[in-house]
Amino acid sequence: MSLTFDLQATDGAARAGTIQTAHGAIQTPVFMPVGTAGTVKAMTADAVRSTGASIVLGNTYHLMLRPGAERVARLGGLHKFMDWPGPILTDSGGFQVMSLSKLRKMDKDGVTFQSHLDGASHRLTPARSIEIQHLLDATITMALDECTPFPATHDQARISTTLSMDWARRSKDAFIPRPGYGLFGIVQGSIYPDLREQSAAALTEIGFEGYAIGGLAVGEGQAEMFKVLDFTVPHLPAGRPRYLMGVGTPDDLIGAVSRGVDMFDCVMPTRAGRTARAYTSKGVFNLRNARFADDAAPIDPACDCPACSRHTAAYLHHLFKAEEMLGPMLLTWHNIAYYQSLMRGLRDAVLAGRLDAHAAELRAGWASTEEPA
Amino acid sequence: MSLTFDLQATDGAARAGTIQTAHGAIQTPVFMPVGTAGTVKAMTADAVRSTGASIVLGNTYHLMLRPGAERVARLGGLHKFMDWPGPILTDSGGFQVMSLSKLRKMDKDGVTFQSHLDGASHRLTPARSIEIQHLLDATITMALDECTPFPATHDQARISTTLSMDWARRSKDAFIPRPGYGLFGIVQGSIYPDLREQSAAALTEIGFEGYAIGGLAVGEGQAEMFKVLDFTVPHLPAGRPRYLMGVGTPDDLIGAVSRGVDMFDCVMPTRAGRTARAYTSKGVFNLRNARFADDAAPIDPACDCPACSRHTAAYLHHLFKAEEMLGPMLLTWHNIAYYQSLMRGLRDAVLAGRLDAHAAELRAGWASTEEPA
Repeated sequence: MSLTFDLQATDGAARAGTIQTAHGAIQTPVFMPVGTAGTVKAMTADAVRSTGASIVLGNTYHLMLRPGAERVARLGGLHKFMDWPGPILTDSGGFQVMSLSKLRKMDKDGVTFQSHLDGASHRLTPARSIEIQHLLDATITMALDECTPFPATHDQARISTTLSMDWARRSKDAFIPRPGYGLFGIVQGSIYPDLREQSAAALTEIGFEGYAIGGLAVGEGQAEMFKVLDFTVPHLPAGRPRYLMGVGTPDDLIGAVSRGVDMFDCVMPTRAGRTARAYTSKGVFNLRNARFADDAAPIDPACDCPACSRHTAAYLHHLFKAEEMLGPMLLTWHNIAYYQSLMRGLRDAVLAGRLDAHAAELRAGWASTEEPA
Repeated sequence: MSLTFDLQATDGAARAGTIQTAHGAIQTPVFMPVGTAGTVKAMTADAVRSTGASIVLGNTYHLMLRPGAERVARLGGLHKFMDWPGPILTDSGGFQVMSLSKLRKMDKDGVTFQSHLDGASHRLTPARSIEIQHLLDATITMALDECTPFPATHDQARISTTLSMDWARRSKDAFIPRPGYGLFGIVQGSIYPDLREQSAAALTEIGFEGYAIGGLAVGEGQAEMFKVLDFTVPHLPAGRPRYLMGVGTPDDLIGAVSRGVDMFDCVMPTRAGRTARAYTSKGVFNLRNARFADDAAPIDPACDCPACSRHTAAYLHHLFKAEEMLGPMLLTWHNIAYYQSLMRGLRDAVLAGRLDAHAAELRAGWASTEEPA
């Protein structure tokens, strides 16, 4: 039997659920730290686990180029390779082919591109993307799609979505079901309600273990993104997890959870950790700011991560000024811990039927500082 | 009472002892990881502790410039700042003033220099160096000296050593004794037996809690360094710890321990960890080497650090090729774990009276590979 999803509670459109997989359980709503090239940047796997993270994301594009999917398979799969026996979701590679590779050429069967690392030519088709994710031993495999660029005319979006739905079918055909594993389809359709509805219907017809919403967080802005969620989520099967790809800020997460989304991934907390930006219960801060030089308080008194329980903001400030690697290490750890704590809080609020009140409390905490999240 | 030193055993000239300090005990021989700017580069304090390290080193020059000694004192001292409640040894700053600063000007009372960070003018005297180390709350304070450059004529070395002995006296005068703390003097004299003997005698006359041997590992080579130890160590008080500054390779450590040295520090294992060089029971390897790409074995099967117990050499190779921060993080951890394990092994061998046999076994392990340590 493929991975399963059970709902424990709903609060408005928001849901608290559990995904059971071959590699363990995932309580939702859930934030998945991004482990692009087989590592959540600047964190050991133990550190990631210590934050309560239950699932991480790996990038097919990066891993197929280096170290190579067949090599990872020979070495026992991505779980063993990166010391993460828990669930792993891999993306399809399509997004990075479009954003990172050189000289890419799309056709109806796939995309041929040159590696951004060494210029070598590669080809990604739905079948090959699914095969790579199988070689990596992904717990959750994503169908290959085209992330429709933003903005797109209705015609452009329709053509792109039609292609993605064809690839979704081919991805399903290529996927080899295994107990506790699953394949997710990706709804496209840009900002157009009719296309989103058609895409959701096409995917539901094919049948997937989960449904992702793609083509968002690509420049449309939070208000537009929430509008798309408002008219898309109702078309997704209630009994399957819903995954909003590449999102987002803490406030994005609250808004999407309240609209019925269960899963998220984003490089924001890890990238911010490397550039001195701290996500906290009091808002977002840049730790390079001189006002932290003598700050004997932790960066977030509400947090129990090592950066907060062992060190002052002054120490973190010093590490970033001195360009010490421990700065990114500790702050990435904190940011991921904050995101995990945020998601646990949202889940608890859904279970308690008080999501709106909890969201208001979170936003009030952020609003008390000059740099809201 | 100042810090104490007790000998548990000797084996030839080699010693196994215990230094009792205000911040805990140090079993010798001991290797002190270098925490230049308030962090052992690429390691959390927890990671450093997990290797069995009992004392770390901080650099006065770096810390006085950034974040500043007075600031560290206001924040509760270096132990709290860097989450290291255990013993900390700080150097005097003299070595880095000579190697890093700009436009330095020596006089008989101290040295005036410009910071390599912002060009600001600073002055370091014996009294100020001791005061800074007091502000940092160093468990072991080092006297300010001039590290005689190599090579030096007998005349140059004599003049330099005379200055250092005057500064040693001034350092002693400035040092405020506290229970479980201590001040170490530094023997200079370049490669000249008479100067080394005179320097040791002058320091012993002043009286310190420990005696360092400075001016070595500055280009003279291992054979010359061992010769200097052979004619210097016998002039040091047997009842005090002996510290060889800035040394060294695993083979250097064996040779110096067998000549009666108790304490060491060196950036080698941490720096190597950032440049893919692994110190192991089988020798030294560069993990960027293509032969590790498919190596499913740990980098050192004899090691229980996370890099070795959780990951393959192929994973470490991948991390360095992909320039992922986790590569330096894991390999620094391993190298420090290896150095700590090496020192524990040497101590155990001294206690068992079989240092020579143990050293031969270590060297045989290294010799089995193409890149001996």
